[in-house]
Amino acid sequence: MKHFTSYLTLGMATLFASCSSGDDEQKQNKPRTPEDKPNVVILFADDLGYGDLGTYGHPTIETPHLDNMAQEGMKFTQFYVAATVSTPSRGALLTGRLPVRSGVHSGVYFPDTEKGIPQKEVTIAEALKEEGYSAACYGKWHLGHKNKYLPTNNGFDDYFGIPYSNDMTPVHNDWGRAQNFPKLPLVDDTTVVEQGVDQRTLTRRYTEHAVDFIQNHKKEPFFLYVPYTFPHVPLFASDKFRDTSKRGLYGDVVQEIDWSAGKIMQTIKNLGIEENTLVFFTSDNGPWLVKKTDGGSAGLLRGGKGTCWEGGMREPAIAWWPGTIEKGVTETSLATSMDLFTTALNLAGAELPQDRTIDGKNLEPLLKGKKEKVRDKMFYYRGSELYAVRKGPWKAHYITVKNRYTPDQKVTRHDPPLLFNIEKDPSEKYNVAEDNQDVLKMLDSVVAEHKSNLDVKQSVIE
Amino acid sequence: MKHFTSYLTLGMATLFASCSSGDDEQKQNKPRTPEDKPNVVILFADDLGYGDLGTYGHPTIETPHLDNMAQEGMKFTQFYVAATVSTPSRGALLTGRLPVRSGVHSGVYFPDTEKGIPQKEVTIAEALKEEGYSAACYGKWHLGHKNKYLPTNNGFDDYFGIPYSNDMTPVHNDWGRAQNFPKLPLVDDTTVVEQGVDQRTLTRRYTEHAVDFIQNHKKEPFFLYVPYTFPHVPLFASDKFRDTSKRGLYGDVVQEIDWSAGKIMQTIKNLGIEENTLVFFTSDNGPWLVKKTDGGSAGLLRGGKGTCWEGGMREPAIAWWPGTIEKGVTETSLATSMDLFTTALNLAGAELPQDRTIDGKNLEPLLKGKKEKVRDKMFYYRGSELYAVRKGPWKAHYITVKNRYTPDQKVTRHDPPLLFNIEKDPSEKYNVAEDNQDVLKMLDSVVAEHKSNLDVKQSVIE
Repeated sequence: MKHFTSYLTLGMATLFASCSSGDDEQKQNKPRTPEDKPNVVILFADDLGYGDLGTYGHPTIETPHLDNMAQEGMKFTQFYVAATVSTPSRGALLTGRLPVRSGVHSGVYFPDTEKGIPQKEVTIAEALKEEGYSAACYGKWHLGHKNKYLPTNNGFDDYFGIPYSNDMTPVHNDWGRAQNFPKLPLVDDTTVVEQGVDQRTLTRRYTEHAVDFIQNHKKEPFFLYVPYTFPHVPLFASDKFRDTSKRGLYGDVVQEIDWSAGKIMQTIKNLGIEENTLVFFTSDNGPWLVKKTDGGSAGLLRGGKGTCWEGGMREPAIAWWPGTIEKGVTETSLATSMDLFTTALNLAGAELPQDRTIDGKNLEPLLKGKKEKVRDKMFYYRGSELYAVRKGPWKAHYITVKNRYTPDQKVTRHDPPLLFNIEKDPSEKYNVAEDNQDVLKMLDSVVAEHKSNLDVKQSVIE
Repeated sequence: MKHFTSYLTLGMATLFASCSSGDDEQKQNKPRTPEDKPNVVILFADDLGYGDLGTYGHPTIETPHLDNMAQEGMKFTQFYVAATVSTPSRGALLTGRLPVRSGVHSGVYFPDTEKGIPQKEVTIAEALKEEGYSAACYGKWHLGHKNKYLPTNNGFDDYFGIPYSNDMTPVHNDWGRAQNFPKLPLVDDTTVVEQGVDQRTLTRRYTEHAVDFIQNHKKEPFFLYVPYTFPHVPLFASDKFRDTSKRGLYGDVVQEIDWSAGKIMQTIKNLGIEENTLVFFTSDNGPWLVKKTDGGSAGLLRGGKGTCWEGGMREPAIAWWPGTIEKGVTETSLATSMDLFTTALNLAGAELPQDRTIDGKNLEPLLKGKKEKVRDKMFYYRGSELYAVRKGPWKAHYITVKNRYTPDQKVTRHDPPLLFNIEKDPSEKYNVAEDNQDVLKMLDSVVAEHKSNLDVKQSVIE
């Protein structure tokens, strides 16, 4: 009887599929070319360090699926996010704009924060929806947990996940501030479906939702955004991954994310839509070093989360698009998370918003192996303040913060600024300001020009 | 006329080849199986750090050939050399024995050193010669430059290279001691053929010799050892590589070594002998950090050359043997350079020397994908003194030296020792001795057992 029911369900699904209108059918049967509104999938880890994947040199975290993604695709080695912490980094990713322009810049949102991503900001999901894309978000949102700020009110058709960080609970935090927070909620669209969710289940459940979404939308263009809850502390792995990594719990958790990424790419391959799908993997900011072995590693880069040293804002980043991206390429050009906005809109054939500054650049030339420089500048903000600037290989720090993200952080202003050639000295060890006054002047003028075009927004409750 | 000569030469070569005896011919025509005395090639960089290749996470040194070697082969992430500096590391590689056992342990050899590798030590070349292998060494020897210590008196049929480090010259050094040294000699077998060799030519010329040797020995088993002169300082790249790397001269030099490794593997492929050839790439010790941007990077590992921190003795290590080693494997098990001795002898069918302790283990199970542990201990010597010990993930430091290799180095003895779980904490940041007294006791007993079987040799002039 059970077998018969299954058969019936399958049969009905097939029936519905073939009941679509003639027009739709024709559209669906016409094979899509790789250029024809490709699917865009963004897998976004939380607090993963530059050195935390096998292909980025970690010795004991085993990430065969992400390593394989790099072998089949493109590994970026100078890919930046736009902020040193979660909320503004996510805002910049989804809007293509520096946090100071959108107003999503003043630290991270807490359970008692009333603010959220301003309604007039255009997210990738909103822009792609105009072009006929379906869009889903499964994971940690962190751009406002009030109803109007949630994903389904920002262009996504479906949402399942936690609305803010997994340590913003009455239990799992060590910063007095969080004591009165509710138990961690799990949200389905805009409804809290569990309060005090078992975090061990999250990576698996996000993955299941992602796989279902891909299978249900295999015939139409889609945008899938999976912002994983981990390896942000507190760390939780499912029983299947617990105690499997030599690197301890942190490794277990990263290895479960690796499994998830592999599962999602395998689903895409199984459906035969891999030539129509760009998958991009990266993280929101660098490793949370004060968490010791519960935090990650920035590899050879200096600093971590909360700082504008390279370790705080440079991330592992892998692009995969079989047939379009050449296999096994290491791309050493500059790129940023904001570029994913512009790239996704260009791929979808959507027009960029014309009434505002978009900081993202189109990465298509790099993805397609063209030797074009898409950007040569990077602005390192912490909150609404510019801490450092990069042009070409040169990076000047005007302000630095001690290598941690705690309330008693120590901020130092540098005059003259610290200067590093970060392609020759990627660990930012050797300050060469004294011998390169002309370079400092050049960077000062880059900053001046940047600031002359900057209309800093204050984030407000709308 | 020129064309005719070339044709004639080629014709004569063919003639000679077909004039070999019937027995030989039969032997040559019988196709070799991959197991049938495979060729062994060891490519050995000098002072290359754990983090200096693309596949080990360097952002601006581009090493497509070595990255590809890893994608087609096996990348080790916990591979050690047996000493923190050149001479003893090379001795251990070629003899399979800890430097304290062979006597090749008291620092590095200089142009005024009378000593060399003891005659009674058995090198890989000597052992494989007994099994019908041809053997050649092209590069920096550094196991004694007096005639009797040179490669052709230690089992190699052919030698071309510099006899000691490239900074042991009257020109390129910054340690007073070297002032009266002769100009850097280039040796062919045992004859100095150039005095004051142009170092820009070295990587290219070693490669040309290696390619010729492979082509000339394609029908018989061979052992090829290419100990590159670089990236040991002073750095020299050929015109073709100079100013090509974003990482500066250090990157140029590593990228030329990458080219060389690629050229050697391509030669092996072109001859169709790749399934009969194990190629292994590694380096003699960690990066020379005091040389600043002229030195390399140990990535996320602590310390460098001259120290027993992981960065001093853990190295990039890639094994390539198409058809035998599975593609794209990351091997996180412990292995050491001494294991290459035992592995090579086993592959060649040679018996291990029975009259002495051999520290090397046979890596064949790992190379062939068997889930066997070949070793779980590592002894970190500096000179003849044991500084640290590892068993499983646990490493105790009894002595540490400040992170540099200079005459004013500062040595500290630790009681209790420092203790790290280096699989969970690969950067050796968090000393956990206090909470793990039982582990310290266990490591003490590992050391006691090791020392009870140790007959420390003094190196003498023979």
